[in-house]
Amino acid sequence: MTPDEFAPSAAALQEVERACAASAVGWATFRSLPRLRRAELLRAIAAAIRDDGDTILPLAAEETRLPPRRLSAELERTAAQAELFATVVAEGSYLEAAIDHGRDGLPELRQMQVPLGPVAVFAAGNFPLAFSVMGGDTASALAAGCSVVVKTHPDHPRTSRAVLASVHCALRSTGIPASVVEAVSDPSAGAALVADPRIAAGGFTGSLAGGRELFDIAARRRHPIPFFAEMSSINPVIVTPKAARNDPGGIGGLLADAILGRAGQLCTKPGVLLVPEDAQELVDVMRRRLEIADAQPMLSPGIAGRFADRLASWQSGGARSLTSGMVDDRWAATPTLAETTLSELDGPVLEEAFGPAALIARYDDLKSVATVLERMGGQLTTTFHLHPDEIDEARPLLAVAALLSGRVLVGGVPTGVRVGWATTHGGPYPATTAPSSTSVGASAIGRWLRPVTWQDVPQELLPDELRDVPRHPLPRRVDGQLITR
Amino acid sequence: MTPDEFAPSAAALQEVERACAASAVGWATFRSLPRLRRAELLRAIAAAIRDDGDTILPLAAEETRLPPRRLSAELERTAAQAELFATVVAEGSYLEAAIDHGRDGLPELRQMQVPLGPVAVFAAGNFPLAFSVMGGDTASALAAGCSVVVKTHPDHPRTSRAVLASVHCALRSTGIPASVVEAVSDPSAGAALVADPRIAAGGFTGSLAGGRELFDIAARRRHPIPFFAEMSSINPVIVTPKAARNDPGGIGGLLADAILGRAGQLCTKPGVLLVPEDAQELVDVMRRRLEIADAQPMLSPGIAGRFADRLASWQSGGARSLTSGMVDDRWAATPTLAETTLSELDGPVLEEAFGPAALIARYDDLKSVATVLERMGGQLTTTFHLHPDEIDEARPLLAVAALLSGRVLVGGVPTGVRVGWATTHGGPYPATTAPSSTSVGASAIGRWLRPVTWQDVPQELLPDELRDVPRHPLPRRVDGQLITR
Repeated sequence: MTPDEFAPSAAALQEVERACAASAVGWATFRSLPRLRRAELLRAIAAAIRDDGDTILPLAAEETRLPPRRLSAELERTAAQAELFATVVAEGSYLEAAIDHGRDGLPELRQMQVPLGPVAVFAAGNFPLAFSVMGGDTASALAAGCSVVVKTHPDHPRTSRAVLASVHCALRSTGIPASVVEAVSDPSAGAALVADPRIAAGGFTGSLAGGRELFDIAARRRHPIPFFAEMSSINPVIVTPKAARNDPGGIGGLLADAILGRAGQLCTKPGVLLVPEDAQELVDVMRRRLEIADAQPMLSPGIAGRFADRLASWQSGGARSLTSGMVDDRWAATPTLAETTLSELDGPVLEEAFGPAALIARYDDLKSVATVLERMGGQLTTTFHLHPDEIDEARPLLAVAALLSGRVLVGGVPTGVRVGWATTHGGPYPATTAPSSTSVGASAIGRWLRPVTWQDVPQELLPDELRDVPRHPLPRRVDGQLITR
Repeated sequence: MTPDEFAPSAAALQEVERACAASAVGWATFRSLPRLRRAELLRAIAAAIRDDGDTILPLAAEETRLPPRRLSAELERTAAQAELFATVVAEGSYLEAAIDHGRDGLPELRQMQVPLGPVAVFAAGNFPLAFSVMGGDTASALAAGCSVVVKTHPDHPRTSRAVLASVHCALRSTGIPASVVEAVSDPSAGAALVADPRIAAGGFTGSLAGGRELFDIAARRRHPIPFFAEMSSINPVIVTPKAARNDPGGIGGLLADAILGRAGQLCTKPGVLLVPEDAQELVDVMRRRLEIADAQPMLSPGIAGRFADRLASWQSGGARSLTSGMVDDRWAATPTLAETTLSELDGPVLEEAFGPAALIARYDDLKSVATVLERMGGQLTTTFHLHPDEIDEARPLLAVAALLSGRVLVGGVPTGVRVGWATTHGGPYPATTAPSSTSVGASAIGRWLRPVTWQDVPQELLPDELRDVPRHPLPRRVDGQLITR
């Protein structure tokens, strides 16, 4: 596809034109606010979303069919995420402020990060709150000082409008132009949005096909822009021989729950389980747990259909079904566990199956797992269940996993991403289009920033953070020395 | 161009295959060395290059026709740059190590940066040492823990071989595989190198056309990779009315020297000078200085030819020549100063003229300069000469300059980049393809890294830098708190 080949509708073009023009105007004000005003805004947004929960949650439940308890937790996560970024902004390390004083005829350099400009954020379908209008990308972009145009997700339009209303209310209450967060919703608006010359970067969470298409548009612009797409991961889990023998019930139960959670519609759902030859008990535990689980409603007919297609391709790829997995005509899916061999774990079988299903393959020799991990390519996560006696055998495998994944776990399950300072939610292609970036956690702010150096610039023309005595102190590197305050 | 349309020669393919295979093997060892070994390597390389100066410098002088004094300074800069990165690696902040301890049922997260993999580095023609085989990109990539395949520049092959020999000697002396730095030289090897699946990222300094072509190949790969191209900048200089009246001789002399240095073949050469209507004296000073300067040999017939084309396009764009600029048949260029109007400063006239030439345009009203800066787009640098009385008028212009440039100067000239902790050598497109990155200075190491989080991983399976008590202490963020040691 070339940039000329996508044909947005007239309505989409109009919507994108209006939103981008407004966003550019909003940004002109927003970018020059002191950073503590942005921290204040993020806290006000968190409060507004919590306050409006009674309006937002029923809409989300109706539109996504997700259980209310999941949605309440997601709303709280969404608010807490905005608050984390308020803390990140106030703390100031993210600016990477550095001062090299002039000496020996060398000029004085003062460097810090500045926002890229108005950015496009694509909402995901599976998290109508945490990865949607006020999701992680919007929070980190606002924290960075960028204005945001959200492409809303077609599966939860009313939820999107309700959250946007809360965000606008918070913007107004803090005296910041509402145009700092705009939204577009036309199905063909996404491509036009990424192509718009006012947009300086993009963030996306969704399918490999959708993410790659938008990445290509971003790269083929006259002025290319960074495009951060989080797309596809099969999140391998490796159970070592002693671990499988020692605690088949515990590990099997944990993994089964992670496959079932949110009907498997999580980008960190364990998709491939590599277990030892003799792990029959572990496999049986999982099989039984999945067999007794109810059919779960999928988010949309489209997702249900693609999930059914993936199961069919497992079958044609030689996998043997261990449960009676299927998708019914009310787009509900019964959980699926299938088994294949290490050598057949290749090609289309390795494409992400977004739903309650996992593939098991048994290994003879733990060492052979390294090759399989390499063949599976870039991942958001790789998880190990290992017995303390097997640390030495596991060491080379963890090293391979770190080459290929954004997160490496020992024990537990990869679902349920902790949003913290040390979070990485990213990884090599096809997990994302930008391996150096994370879409969750404090360091996600970095995707929306670029460095600028001011050389020999008088104090009164410098940003506050780079002056000799900043009004709001922050960690800075002065003549190579990191000084925390 | 699609990835199928470039047709590397059989020799190029063979060369790239050999180099990438070797680089991948070298990287497998290199990536697992403790970081202090890499610091040691960078210091050994600096020493080797200085020791081999008597071999390297005469070759460089012969191949580039650059004055020996310039080349000695460049060799020292190249060595000092490797030493700066040794300090950066040892200090350890670049790893962005962060630990979120487990609490309230949340897992423990430990995050740091890891190298991307083998990377491709494209040498530039105008700095046969500082932006070539052991230039900034190679130094920062080795610092990050990446192996490097350099595409050498055709204009200085023997210099490239001599520097590579020094680097290999340093690698061997520190017990690190020589394959950690490989080189290819076939003219069609560049495209094949960027397309090679083993290459994880690329760095380039050169023309807009060349950089964009390689960027496009990187983006169109089956697995796209980041490609950092530093390409094109006209480095506007704005002289305010009082500054022009107050010190026409000083400012005019400085600017003329910056236009003449290295025959204007610097990516930070001031290319457009915006001066007040009544700045005749300033213009005269520059004109006289350029008129008496000798014709200067250009780096290659190709560069001389493209420079002559640019001058012709200035003329056809309506610019009036103030000096008798020309390129002779021995590819030497006499310096050129031309004048145009603010409104004619648009279109092809704004393409970078790589050589000893600058365009002057006079403004009526300092305010009108903002629009002109916006029209000129992304820049490596924007420079202001302003009188202390004019700080308030200059403030909005400096804000616009920071939106469009990687470096904003008050006074002085943009040539002569200081290599420090606070250096930015980058900027929005077309200055570079990656606005969030710098190619010079300590933070250049960031382009070759990506984050990984280890979740609930036992101490003995963690990288040293993330253990409770690292062998070599470094700044870390622990539960959100930045701790310097």
